[in-house]
Amino acid sequence: MQISGFGEFDIIEKIFKPGFDHLIPEDVTGIGDDCAIIPIDDKQSNLYTTDLLIEDIHFLRNSITAFELGFKSLAVNLSDIAAMGGKPEGSFLSIGLPPDLEISWIEAFMQGFRKLSEKEYVPLLGGDTTKSSCGIVINVGVRGTILHQQIKRRSAALPGDIIAVLDPLGNSAGGLQIILNHYPDHDCHANLLKQHLTPYPKIAEGRFLAGINKVHAMIDVSDGIGSDLKHIANASDAAAEVYLENIPLSTDLKELCRLHKFDPLKLAVSGGEDYTLLVTIDGLAFDEIAMHYQKQFKSYLYPIGRILEGEPSVVYKKNGEIVELDADGFDHFA
Amino acid sequence: MQISGFGEFDIIEKIFKPGFDHLIPEDVTGIGDDCAIIPIDDKQSNLYTTDLLIEDIHFLRNSITAFELGFKSLAVNLSDIAAMGGKPEGSFLSIGLPPDLEISWIEAFMQGFRKLSEKEYVPLLGGDTTKSSCGIVINVGVRGTILHQQIKRRSAALPGDIIAVLDPLGNSAGGLQIILNHYPDHDCHANLLKQHLTPYPKIAEGRFLAGINKVHAMIDVSDGIGSDLKHIANASDAAAEVYLENIPLSTDLKELCRLHKFDPLKLAVSGGEDYTLLVTIDGLAFDEIAMHYQKQFKSYLYPIGRILEGEPSVVYKKNGEIVELDADGFDHFA
Repeated sequence: MQISGFGEFDIIEKIFKPGFDHLIPEDVTGIGDDCAIIPIDDKQSNLYTTDLLIEDIHFLRNSITAFELGFKSLAVNLSDIAAMGGKPEGSFLSIGLPPDLEISWIEAFMQGFRKLSEKEYVPLLGGDTTKSSCGIVINVGVRGTILHQQIKRRSAALPGDIIAVLDPLGNSAGGLQIILNHYPDHDCHANLLKQHLTPYPKIAEGRFLAGINKVHAMIDVSDGIGSDLKHIANASDAAAEVYLENIPLSTDLKELCRLHKFDPLKLAVSGGEDYTLLVTIDGLAFDEIAMHYQKQFKSYLYPIGRILEGEPSVVYKKNGEIVELDADGFDHFA
Repeated sequence: MQISGFGEFDIIEKIFKPGFDHLIPEDVTGIGDDCAIIPIDDKQSNLYTTDLLIEDIHFLRNSITAFELGFKSLAVNLSDIAAMGGKPEGSFLSIGLPPDLEISWIEAFMQGFRKLSEKEYVPLLGGDTTKSSCGIVINVGVRGTILHQQIKRRSAALPGDIIAVLDPLGNSAGGLQIILNHYPDHDCHANLLKQHLTPYPKIAEGRFLAGINKVHAMIDVSDGIGSDLKHIANASDAAAEVYLENIPLSTDLKELCRLHKFDPLKLAVSGGEDYTLLVTIDGLAFDEIAMHYQKQFKSYLYPIGRILEGEPSVVYKKNGEIVELDADGFDHFA
């Protein structure tokens, strides 16, 4: 059987994960959350995450500048640290480069990488550079730290929690459509493209939410909430209900979808690469926490659903009625 | 200007390293040794290393089994931890897979990876899996720990030190020649191929040497001593002299070279991928340390040269005479 017949999560669960459990100390968390968690002492843990980006799979060289790609390569990793509430501390960059690539490309890539490194005070601490026989290959790893008591896991959602996101969804998916379809310029493009090409990781927001006990589960929206919410439901052994009328959509995305006849909800639920955070918060504490959040960040916590007792599942409702949605999120092997 | 006109170390020094120094805490070591070093507390540090392997650059799919490649992918990283004297603690595996790859290939790859993980008690703690548009892409990262006082840096060599290696050199390069030239089977092949396909990292040996104060600098031999010794000379601001008649060569390598008219010394000095350790040891303490080492590991510390006062350089001598050797070691962009 070939890889293409397997899903990404099947490969992880059935081939990569088995056979290591007896080697993992009891207090260490391995594969299965946004980051691995390794305790340092009684108070703190290290977080570690890594992401592999391959040309023509994750990016097209002609559709993203080297600067943007450098920025984004680090951003998607910092987003995983943010998703657990952590503070990023250092990065590691492995890069495979075709021999005919211009040096100016790599310089611009590093300018983008450095820009975000400086903004978030995350030094590049190591890596590997090599020739590539095919396209550009980028692997970034990030190490972070977090207080034990502030770690936000996928498995911590509780029935009664409100599910919320920190930003309108689907903007990045809209940006990708603009690129893939070569749409002529339009006022609605700039923000959508920016969201796709240089997403800003929610580190400050993640750390703020990590400090609040009644914020339970957290995950970053990388594959679309359809997929990412499933991870929370499975890990927390609970059901999730999403109210489609509550999903925040930007004016720009709505305009793009009106012009080109996309379903904005589909882009919002399954488009992926939003790199915002999805959180579940004690239903009784939600209003107060949302108010504090708004005060701090001049931005909303958008409630989009609820966690309920029941078998792990994600159900979509519109005006109280269950809606079937073909919205599994992005699978890297599909 | 294109990448191909730049050397690997130029790219690291001129493009990747600059611009991060002001972000790196004073007690943290970033790019420039086998691993990054990040202090945990008053006694210990974490070590981090990462290596990117790309099909057709680092391996040919038809010349190494999936099991061997899985084993080797982890081994080359554990070798970097060994080179600083550290204890490996956990690994991270990012892998890009062509859609038509058989699942059985990945299963065998993981068996090899797991085999070494179990032998050295290093759990896989995280990673990333994705589709690849070209060949197989593998990035492994390893985290380790070490006591501050035991860290062996490239920069610690002192004039008067004896330069030694833990194993005969060039076996891996011999194995590579057998593969590339499709030589018909011969008794001398088995060990050379094994050394190339499944090198065993010198973790126990590195930790033993790390415990001895008079062992000064240490590095793993990945690009060939010609290149690796240059790193020590540059980092330590000292000169190195290698006595070619002292370079240990296996009977198998000598036989292969006799049969196919290779210069065994050239393979030994610039072939690379030996994954043994190169150490510099206080000249007055060498004999005693070599005796202890031999008792512990039933194997020799082979003295091959000396560190001297002087400008950073590596000079080769044969019977007291300076010899010009075209032996720069392996450069991933050459």
